[in-house]
Amino acid sequence: MSHQPGRHFLQIPGPTNVPLSVLAAIAQSTIDHRGPDFARLALGVLAEIRTIFKTSKPVIIYPASGTGAWEAALINTLSPGDKVLMYETGWFATLWSRMAKRLGLDVELIAGDWRSGVDAAAIEARLADDKTHAIKAVAMVHNETATGVTSAVPPVRRALDAVGHPALLLVDTISSLASIDYRHEEWGVDVTVGGSQKGLMLPPGLAFNAISDKARSAAAKARLPRSYWDWEEMLAANEKGLFPYTPATNLLQGLKVAIDLLHDEGLENVFARHDRAAEATRRCVRQWGLEVNCRNPHEHSSSLTAVRLPEGRSADALRAEILARCNMSLGNGLGPLADKVFRIGHVGDFSDLTVTGTLAGIEIGMKALGIPHRAGGLDAATTYLSGASEAARSETPLRVAKAV
Amino acid sequence: MSHQPGRHFLQIPGPTNVPLSVLAAIAQSTIDHRGPDFARLALGVLAEIRTIFKTSKPVIIYPASGTGAWEAALINTLSPGDKVLMYETGWFATLWSRMAKRLGLDVELIAGDWRSGVDAAAIEARLADDKTHAIKAVAMVHNETATGVTSAVPPVRRALDAVGHPALLLVDTISSLASIDYRHEEWGVDVTVGGSQKGLMLPPGLAFNAISDKARSAAAKARLPRSYWDWEEMLAANEKGLFPYTPATNLLQGLKVAIDLLHDEGLENVFARHDRAAEATRRCVRQWGLEVNCRNPHEHSSSLTAVRLPEGRSADALRAEILARCNMSLGNGLGPLADKVFRIGHVGDFSDLTVTGTLAGIEIGMKALGIPHRAGGLDAATTYLSGASEAARSETPLRVAKAV
Amino acid sequence: MSHQPGRHFLQIPGPTNVPLSVLAAIAQSTIDHRGPDFARLALGVLAEIRTIFKTSKPVIIYPASGTGAWEAALINTLSPGDKVLMYETGWFATLWSRMAKRLGLDVELIAGDWRSGVDAAAIEARLADDKTHAIKAVAMVHNETATGVTSAVPPVRRALDAVGHPALLLVDTISSLASIDYRHEEWGVDVTVGGSQKGLMLPPGLAFNAISDKARSAAAKARLPRSYWDWEEMLAANEKGLFPYTPATNLLQGLKVAIDLLHDEGLENVFARHDRAAEATRRCVRQWGLEVNCRNPHEHSSSLTAVRLPEGRSADALRAEILARCNMSLGNGLGPLADKVFRIGHVGDFSDLTVTGTLAGIEIGMKALGIPHRAGGLDAATTYLSGASEAARSETPLRVAKAV
Amino acid sequence: MSHQPGRHFLQIPGPTNVPLSVLAAIAQSTIDHRGPDFARLALGVLAEIRTIFKTSKPVIIYPASGTGAWEAALINTLSPGDKVLMYETGWFATLWSRMAKRLGLDVELIAGDWRSGVDAAAIEARLADDKTHAIKAVAMVHNETATGVTSAVPPVRRALDAVGHPALLLVDTISSLASIDYRHEEWGVDVTVGGSQKGLMLPPGLAFNAISDKARSAAAKARLPRSYWDWEEMLAANEKGLFPYTPATNLLQGLKVAIDLLHDEGLENVFARHDRAAEATRRCVRQWGLEVNCRNPHEHSSSLTAVRLPEGRSADALRAEILARCNMSLGNGLGPLADKVFRIGHVGDFSDLTVTGTLAGIEIGMKALGIPHRAGGLDAATTYLSGASEAARSETPLRVAKAV
Repeated sequence: MSHQPGRHFLQIPGPTNVPLSVLAAIAQSTIDHRGPDFARLALGVLAEIRTIFKTSKPVIIYPASGTGAWEAALINTLSPGDKVLMYETGWFATLWSRMAKRLGLDVELIAGDWRSGVDAAAIEARLADDKTHAIKAVAMVHNETATGVTSAVPPVRRALDAVGHPALLLVDTISSLASIDYRHEEWGVDVTVGGSQKGLMLPPGLAFNAISDKARSAAAKARLPRSYWDWEEMLAANEKGLFPYTPATNLLQGLKVAIDLLHDEGLENVFARHDRAAEATRRCVRQWGLEVNCRNPHEHSSSLTAVRLPEGRSADALRAEILARCNMSLGNGLGPLADKVFRIGHVGDFSDLTVTGTLAGIEIGMKALGIPHRAGGLDAATTYLSGASEAARSETPLRVAKAV
Repeated sequence: MSHQPGRHFLQIPGPTNVPLSVLAAIAQSTIDHRGPDFARLALGVLAEIRTIFKTSKPVIIYPASGTGAWEAALINTLSPGDKVLMYETGWFATLWSRMAKRLGLDVELIAGDWRSGVDAAAIEARLADDKTHAIKAVAMVHNETATGVTSAVPPVRRALDAVGHPALLLVDTISSLASIDYRHEEWGVDVTVGGSQKGLMLPPGLAFNAISDKARSAAAKARLPRSYWDWEEMLAANEKGLFPYTPATNLLQGLKVAIDLLHDEGLENVFARHDRAAEATRRCVRQWGLEVNCRNPHEHSSSLTAVRLPEGRSADALRAEILARCNMSLGNGLGPLADKVFRIGHVGDFSDLTVTGTLAGIEIGMKALGIPHRAGGLDAATTYLSGASEAARSETPLRVAKAV
Repeated sequence: MSHQPGRHFLQIPGPTNVPLSVLAAIAQSTIDHRGPDFARLALGVLAEIRTIFKTSKPVIIYPASGTGAWEAALINTLSPGDKVLMYETGWFATLWSRMAKRLGLDVELIAGDWRSGVDAAAIEARLADDKTHAIKAVAMVHNETATGVTSAVPPVRRALDAVGHPALLLVDTISSLASIDYRHEEWGVDVTVGGSQKGLMLPPGLAFNAISDKARSAAAKARLPRSYWDWEEMLAANEKGLFPYTPATNLLQGLKVAIDLLHDEGLENVFARHDRAAEATRRCVRQWGLEVNCRNPHEHSSSLTAVRLPEGRSADALRAEILARCNMSLGNGLGPLADKVFRIGHVGDFSDLTVTGTLAGIEIGMKALGIPHRAGGLDAATTYLSGASEAARSETPLRVAKAV
Repeated sequence: MSHQPGRHFLQIPGPTNVPLSVLAAIAQSTIDHRGPDFARLALGVLAEIRTIFKTSKPVIIYPASGTGAWEAALINTLSPGDKVLMYETGWFATLWSRMAKRLGLDVELIAGDWRSGVDAAAIEARLADDKTHAIKAVAMVHNETATGVTSAVPPVRRALDAVGHPALLLVDTISSLASIDYRHEEWGVDVTVGGSQKGLMLPPGLAFNAISDKARSAAAKARLPRSYWDWEEMLAANEKGLFPYTPATNLLQGLKVAIDLLHDEGLENVFARHDRAAEATRRCVRQWGLEVNCRNPHEHSSSLTAVRLPEGRSADALRAEILARCNMSLGNGLGPLADKVFRIGHVGDFSDLTVTGTLAGIEIGMKALGIPHRAGGLDAATTYLSGASEAARSETPLRVAKAV
């Protein structure tokens, strides 16, 4: 890779900037995955990862990408032809639904506008119609990485409960885990899907399934063929700190450090830091006169912000200019949003200076390309950041409040 | 992990000792998996990994463990109920056959003695019987990591050809790739399964499928449900240096360096180095009066040696003693060999001193536990290593000769 | 050290942020300082470091701090009681003069105002008076790290030449090397003093003396006792890639990479990048309504900017606030400037986003503490950075022009 | 550097193999040497390094090579023309005496045979003659790295006391610190000289002076010109976790981890481990029929063994062969021992396998070059190592016993 001076600003909504201490842990020597040192490591991270998902039940750790955990969630719980109800929040919800179809499931995807979250009422209505309980699972994306929209999970849980529907609730928290409050157990989720490369501040390569007892019971009857992703073999081995096949040992070394960093800061503080970064970003964007893609104020994502450029302006040209000038990567628009939006990641390991440096880079790029915008964007961000810190930490976070 | 002085000797037959330069590459910052730097990296490793498998056709790289590549090989090429002929060389061949069964395939496993390689004649006989071509694939393990036995691949290929059988040939080269000569294309293999954590000198976390045109055609008709492992989506994305889902970027950074190291040394020299280490190990073991598990001289593995302890002696107790005293991990016996054999890895990044240090550690352990053995084992090893270097390099390696 | 999220912004004027690739090189295994690999490394860096000082003559590399190179410059060339003419540009010039006194030299320090550079006319006048050539050396600091003032070297050289004075010219380029244009040979400097931890982007621990033939001749007669710092023993050993005592091998591994990075970017581009960062910083500071400490426009340092706070405001309180809030270190005021100025480092490995992130952090700190300032500072910086890039690179840098 | 497979065996008597965790700490980001995180680090290591020297008084840490600490010891305590009594144990004692002469001291060097340690009786005799107390310091090397001979310090202390001589006692413990028991305070040493790159398991670049109150008083009157090495300025700054000039911050990060590793293992266990390695090495060497350079059994060094080759055999040719074949560096003979001896380092971070691997490499080299030797050397080593562990740990170490 050719050299560009200065640390790269990796401000895509994942993979995220990995702290040096995590990289150093990953770069310690590979160890025997059947030896006592590894067992100690494995038992530790298998226990501690539960605190991140907020569950007292097992979390499976796969050597895989987050997409693998999507597959694992479906394949462990469902049988060929099973009906799954999904909601089209954006690109990643769509990809998950395509995967479900390819695995032989009968997918019903409720259409969305790519600017809003899951409509729990629509889900409740659909479930109410399903008198025969043909629908075996409801699957949703907690934080749609393509649109910058976070959907509340509790209303969906309540939708299921309201009509007494026995379907499993599967939730993708890949781009929200360890950055936006998430509560696997309290919210009654059956399978939560996670990945290492976002809020967990690790490189890609680990994928997670947090599972409920109900999900585990469902797995006992599910008939999609499975082996690599099989939960039971994994759980049996995990009890002794083992894995049924060679785990990604070095990433697990990093995971231990990453979890320690999160608890050292305090999970609630981590969430508040993401909330602040997101609010500072939105204030700057609005001051510029640009539009945030997310339509509803209570659904703004705290881990990324998708920004719409004025008609006729290429978001990809702006990203390319910024990459060349400022050594910063921003996320591209996906699917129908391609070239229309760019996405700002504020997730994982960052500080106020990462946030403001990122915003400054965007401003430099817009000025260089002559994209019209109002002055004062950065000023709005620094004003907010200079004062909002304590306030943000003391408030009950919005998303939690909604859950009540 | 508690501190033990001195570098750990990781002498299990994988994961193996990772060179510092590879660890350093993995610990460089995570980059945008959709950016130009990554595309350059990806196109590079996708091209260069072919030289390691010795193929001009595509090699798929998964963010997964080697076991995932087993699943990928089966799931891309076969349909529910398809018959697969496998050969029980040992633990890993057995695990692969179990996986095939769990995926809904009809497995026929030819029994083996866990001390010999694949009997190509037995395979030919079975195929000759299969007039209807019910058998869709023949699957074998090139180097059985549980037993230290390497099976020649060309005779199996000839067995298929001799009876004009159209079954696919699937070969696991997980513990032989980049350490024992292997030729995907010349040997007419349809799917070769590989992993990162052995001869490639990387931590675990990458898995490979090298595929033939015939395998790719078979995939077009295969009906086992698949998504994560699907070849075609991967190949389409790979053309532009992309992946259909987030790849294990940091391990790919390491892969680039690892391949460079292999070519810097020269693949033939790498194989010769492994041959020498294995020969030195066997001479030492025999001088001790212990038995090498592999029965047939032409099937000795060059990447590991499984050693049988005398009746009544616990191999696991010996391994534990050596770990505590000498900070060295050796491989345990698996399945019926549990506690009866220990396995010495001489694979990946090592020198003569790794080999002799390893043997010295075993001798120290045996002396400490009073396991009877003859003196002079290390002397036999140093004598061989002091002289055999040039000779070993100039000889045509046995396994290649067999292929002709 | 307690964890603060996000990469630390080390924006003091040295030590500077070290690129990951340099850290990785330093963290490669320590090697035999008398072996062939080390000789290759040493001969390489001893040759290449000359290109950084712009000299065809030897550069000495000490395992020491920059202060050691100050001592080496004096001790190799002077005898007890020798008169040295120095110029009080600020804290570091003062420290160097104190050192000279402690070593038994007769120091004459021309008073300065800590806001301007060396007055070559004053030096010329003093030298003209020195008919007996009692003054054996003129010593100056090229870039005064305490004040953010860069003094032109060529006028001082001309001052010496104008009066035909034989004194040696000693120049400290610790905080300007590899960031502000510097030409040891062309400018007729006899000893140039450098350090590793600023523009060279290394951790502290290496110190340099670039020496002229004249300096080397002077050393043959100089009588201050010396051993560790002695040039001749060093030069004799260096010829074979050796050192007279154990060198800082791992830092030299990093030095090789750092020099490669500088040449990869191009030294002239490196200087232009620093010029741009400094100009952007000054525009922002002026827009805030704060005063840059450096009085004369043609003497602004490109590697740091010292900013004066309004009377009654504590610069140290501001720095502490910024450190706690934004995880950024700024330089403190030294000597009479203590608590009155803070110093912004823009030296070494940085990009536009480092610069703007740094400025944003200062703005956040000022807002949090209620330090009055005008809005629009960041806007001024991004406007400049968005347009000035190409222009800055094509212009003849000011400091070079002055040299003509 | 060209690639050789396997970890390099750096078995010179320093620099030594640096543990990965220490390298990782060094490769963490450089921090502000005037900030609170650094102060915490500095105060910690300044306190903890005393436990390594076994002193309750200050230890100075220089950014320098060990040779710098030699210079500091002399220059802080002595005045021009002062008489220093030294003892020629070998190359390093000789180099130190040359340095003293170059610094203007009047050196008297008692001749030695390069195979024995300091003769305390000879020192006592000389001091007894010195009725005027012209001798201001007695300087000795604790562990002569050139010969593999460790001299007892307490007898020299007693020699001074016996005749009531007020001279300072200066001791070089560069190659014995943290590997052979050493007690600055209990043994009444005035200045102890140390370096980072041996038993401390760090790369070169830190140098130490442990000082007594008496030494500090002497410094107040000493008149050799000094600045960089001056103790008082250093001690004043150290009180607040500061240094008078930029310290080698990243090496200090490593020092913290290295000290933790030593205490984690236990200093007494560290010494016992070195004793065992040295004994195993000697048993192997004697079984080969080669001669250990050290003449007196009670003076064998535990950190290195110098081995004499038979007449007519080139030690350097053997070292070159071993380097090329086995990727191992051994120490060369120095001064009159050049090409006659090779030196085996067993110091710092090593295990039994490092020791036996090292010995195996030597045996391979001797066999390859046809250097005659008896069989069974390695066998002798493994026999000793397999049994001696517990015994060695429980015994009172010889060198301590001698001190009583």
